[in-house]
Amino acid sequence: MKFNKIGVIGKFGVRNIESTLISLRSILEQEKLEVLFEDEISNLYPEQNFTAADRLYLAEYCDLVIVVGGDGSFLDAARFMAPWKKPMLGINLGRLGFLTDIAPESMHDSLKAILHGEYKSDVRFVLQCKILREGKVVGQGLAMNDVVLHKWKSARMIEFETIIDGEFVNTQRADGVIVSTPTGSTAYALSGGGPILEPSLEALTLVSICPHTLSNRPLVVRSDKNIEIVLIDNNSESAQITCDGQINMPGLAGDVIEITRPDYYVELIHPKKHEVFEVLRAKLGWSDLPKQLKDR
Amino acid sequence: MKFNKIGVIGKFGVRNIESTLISLRSILEQEKLEVLFEDEISNLYPEQNFTAADRLYLAEYCDLVIVVGGDGSFLDAARFMAPWKKPMLGINLGRLGFLTDIAPESMHDSLKAILHGEYKSDVRFVLQCKILREGKVVGQGLAMNDVVLHKWKSARMIEFETIIDGEFVNTQRADGVIVSTPTGSTAYALSGGGPILEPSLEALTLVSICPHTLSNRPLVVRSDKNIEIVLIDNNSESAQITCDGQINMPGLAGDVIEITRPDYYVELIHPKKHEVFEVLRAKLGWSDLPKQLKDR
Amino acid sequence: MKFNKIGVIGKFGVRNIESTLISLRSILEQEKLEVLFEDEISNLYPEQNFTAADRLYLAEYCDLVIVVGGDGSFLDAARFMAPWKKPMLGINLGRLGFLTDIAPESMHDSLKAILHGEYKSDVRFVLQCKILREGKVVGQGLAMNDVVLHKWKSARMIEFETIIDGEFVNTQRADGVIVSTPTGSTAYALSGGGPILEPSLEALTLVSICPHTLSNRPLVVRSDKNIEIVLIDNNSESAQITCDGQINMPGLAGDVIEITRPDYYVELIHPKKHEVFEVLRAKLGWSDLPKQLKDR
Amino acid sequence: MKFNKIGVIGKFGVRNIESTLISLRSILEQEKLEVLFEDEISNLYPEQNFTAADRLYLAEYCDLVIVVGGDGSFLDAARFMAPWKKPMLGINLGRLGFLTDIAPESMHDSLKAILHGEYKSDVRFVLQCKILREGKVVGQGLAMNDVVLHKWKSARMIEFETIIDGEFVNTQRADGVIVSTPTGSTAYALSGGGPILEPSLEALTLVSICPHTLSNRPLVVRSDKNIEIVLIDNNSESAQITCDGQINMPGLAGDVIEITRPDYYVELIHPKKHEVFEVLRAKLGWSDLPKQLKDR
Repeated sequence: MKFNKIGVIGKFGVRNIESTLISLRSILEQEKLEVLFEDEISNLYPEQNFTAADRLYLAEYCDLVIVVGGDGSFLDAARFMAPWKKPMLGINLGRLGFLTDIAPESMHDSLKAILHGEYKSDVRFVLQCKILREGKVVGQGLAMNDVVLHKWKSARMIEFETIIDGEFVNTQRADGVIVSTPTGSTAYALSGGGPILEPSLEALTLVSICPHTLSNRPLVVRSDKNIEIVLIDNNSESAQITCDGQINMPGLAGDVIEITRPDYYVELIHPKKHEVFEVLRAKLGWSDLPKQLKDR
Repeated sequence: MKFNKIGVIGKFGVRNIESTLISLRSILEQEKLEVLFEDEISNLYPEQNFTAADRLYLAEYCDLVIVVGGDGSFLDAARFMAPWKKPMLGINLGRLGFLTDIAPESMHDSLKAILHGEYKSDVRFVLQCKILREGKVVGQGLAMNDVVLHKWKSARMIEFETIIDGEFVNTQRADGVIVSTPTGSTAYALSGGGPILEPSLEALTLVSICPHTLSNRPLVVRSDKNIEIVLIDNNSESAQITCDGQINMPGLAGDVIEITRPDYYVELIHPKKHEVFEVLRAKLGWSDLPKQLKDR
Repeated sequence: MKFNKIGVIGKFGVRNIESTLISLRSILEQEKLEVLFEDEISNLYPEQNFTAADRLYLAEYCDLVIVVGGDGSFLDAARFMAPWKKPMLGINLGRLGFLTDIAPESMHDSLKAILHGEYKSDVRFVLQCKILREGKVVGQGLAMNDVVLHKWKSARMIEFETIIDGEFVNTQRADGVIVSTPTGSTAYALSGGGPILEPSLEALTLVSICPHTLSNRPLVVRSDKNIEIVLIDNNSESAQITCDGQINMPGLAGDVIEITRPDYYVELIHPKKHEVFEVLRAKLGWSDLPKQLKDR
Repeated sequence: MKFNKIGVIGKFGVRNIESTLISLRSILEQEKLEVLFEDEISNLYPEQNFTAADRLYLAEYCDLVIVVGGDGSFLDAARFMAPWKKPMLGINLGRLGFLTDIAPESMHDSLKAILHGEYKSDVRFVLQCKILREGKVVGQGLAMNDVVLHKWKSARMIEFETIIDGEFVNTQRADGVIVSTPTGSTAYALSGGGPILEPSLEALTLVSICPHTLSNRPLVVRSDKNIEIVLIDNNSESAQITCDGQINMPGLAGDVIEITRPDYYVELIHPKKHEVFEVLRAKLGWSDLPKQLKDR
């Protein structure tokens, strides 16, 4: 596929953002492409005369969305774009990202190649989270990484039941639970002790945070399963539900957190030489031969 | 589907095996079904006149295979039957099994229902393991639970590279690595710190045993991925490859262990009320409300 | 040692508390001992004419303090008593406790024996936690189980440095860190992945909660070490410090949490037959032969 | 303390060993010290005329023993020297060691300072392991890192009971168990999931290898405790006992492995600026600010 209408979304206040945006426009215009900058970022640099549009217009109009920033900015943009299934590409300003995998210094060459059709793409599913209270939806959000239920403003554990496709799994007391996509499996779920899910796997992992029960283990299930988590703790206002660590919603006793996989996705565009495990090796310190422990 | 020709495989020397086989024959004959007993078990009880056939004949001729024993016996039979994709059912003599989920005391009712079409079925994939030495296959085996590469007759770690679909993953030093199906994820892989994969998930988990590198984590990948593990340790005869803990093959430096998913499967027949998570709760001690740790 | 002046502390609102207190008084009076009930509990049952005193008086006057309730009540009382180093004994109303190890049904016999000098005792050290802000102490508390620093009202990790006896250990990003005594090692620290410290061990364990760094591991150090944890996150009001999950204090960026071992202790009185590992086996499900995983 | 008689032990066949030994002799002779080389290493370089003695003579005669090699060589020498409690110092030829913490390139300056009394010392206890069969000692060894009981020439788990100071702890099925000193807590025990014990801690950790029971957790106990592990598996010749991964002894069903702390120790000599946690940070990848996981 050839991209013609490029939307650009940038992170506020990050170092080198302005110069990177300028270089990016220049590269894209050399390619005779139409470039639209999200108004929130273009407004910061009025003297640059970036052609601006709001995020919704980018979602509907563009055929490639480029995010300049870190993985956090990418997640935020990707949740917005997911219903339009737009191809997306990330240029990382800062340390190497899992999602923003093009460095500014290699941006020129990488982008030229991609715009001439030399790329790999990689489809990531997202999750839809709904909070049901007495049968009514009182909150909802999309998540590309994870939906997290956790204790809030309390030193006490929360108590919840997990139900998968209508089948009761277990009752737990814990600090919370992380329901993560493969994309999120290298984020918070990994800190919580979860496994790494290869990106193309159609699966979710449920990872309990500081579970009370010693036999608790991470669970991996098909991504088309319907997950329900019922808050049964009687401490009202002691829980919070978070999508990608960016959208926060309060949870009350009796609430049902319903997590499903909608018909949305994010298509990540990578340079042709991109390798999943190379990113893991670099980010997780797997790049070297083992050298850490004492010789035996 | 209605079953007409029933093969029976039993475990030697287990308590109550003879009386269970007699009851089983009686139940099946009441249903006017043809019953064949594996010769190895029927030979032990000549006075019972069990109609006998060898395992290969059962695999080709029968449309349901019943295993009387424990999960170990079931694994052994299932690896044999997998190329014929025969429905299989397990009656456990001993403690509750993950695979042999019908207790002898409920055998009569459970079997009647199943034989009248009241059942659930659950398809489990298997793995094929080949050991390649200088380009030649020097060993091979099927596995329903797991293929394990581990150090052998040595206190020293082994060193190996993992390659998935031709992409290099990492080099590790460890006591070994477990490549497990969802079926095996509640067996040895769980002892090694792996996640629980729900049975219907088309995925494998790779779990390192006592890895030298602290950032090592279990990996979950699609089951159609081609896994290659290359033994790079220079200690000859220091490694072994094991399928389901039942088939053992020596590994030498330079050997490539290739693990793929063949077009075989095992169809497990369960009583209608069977629930995956109920078995997990019972076997893993999830059945009760959490009660283990100190109150906070 | 022979006990003469017995203080009794009870938990509000727990089932059977009144009848247990009455039985307890009767047993103690048969032994011709002086019995004082904490005023907070005696006030609830005016018709019983329990001889009452406040907690401070109990601490100064009594030579044995009996807590009727759960481990939570015991912790609360023990922190108060620790500076007086009073022998303490727990009668558990509810499920078996680690600290309240006498069941009401065996109370009569157990107490008689203990009061006649037939007992084991077991000394547990406590921790002192001070929060220093710009050089001033802005909060302090004792802990018998653990001092926990954790994120508060935020989905974001906190960032902190750990310094032990003036030597820099590391900088971490995590949901928090648990500094636990052996007593607390079977409580929250265990949920967080920490080891079990045998009660007589003069050591602390530092267990990170959901650490960002994969090579993070629980650390065990001598209990006389001075622990300093410096909050370096720039999110003001994003952290909380908790002692035994019962005392809560806010933390700000720049705060130093200083944890030392004061010259206080709690002397636990147990029946003669008490065994440390028996309690662990019962509470942690170690009591049975292994039966959980699939047979191999 | 001032050192006068220096023993030198070197590892065979390691790169740069000869030139390092020559430099070392030159440094020591400049200080007018008496230098003795272990005969096994001096014999390899007859033309160097190293003054030679056997290891026993070094142990009895010298007041400082220098090991040139890696942690493996140091462990081997330290077990031999422990009964004589000789100060020891390690020069690492290879990657940074936990025990051999002086690099050859800084050897000149570090040694000069140490020989002039500018050093830190750090006492490490060792373990004594005895294997009792029908009441008789059939094997014994010292360990500076760990005593490991593990399955041997078998894919099956072993079964064993643990008894601490005569008190029954539990029965386990596992691939084995590691009993580690603080020194060994950063070696094999860490790969097995154990905690890091600070070197001055008078404690042992017991870490099960691939335990069958999900509620199993590492245990930390006082170093003066008497540990007994009883092999109860009925597979004869299925187990091995290993000290520091260097001494191997077979175990049979019924054997009791008794682990005690003898009145021996190893005194490690370090440069004045040596810091325990600096070595940990460098070896375990704690040296940097956390950077591994995905931003949230």
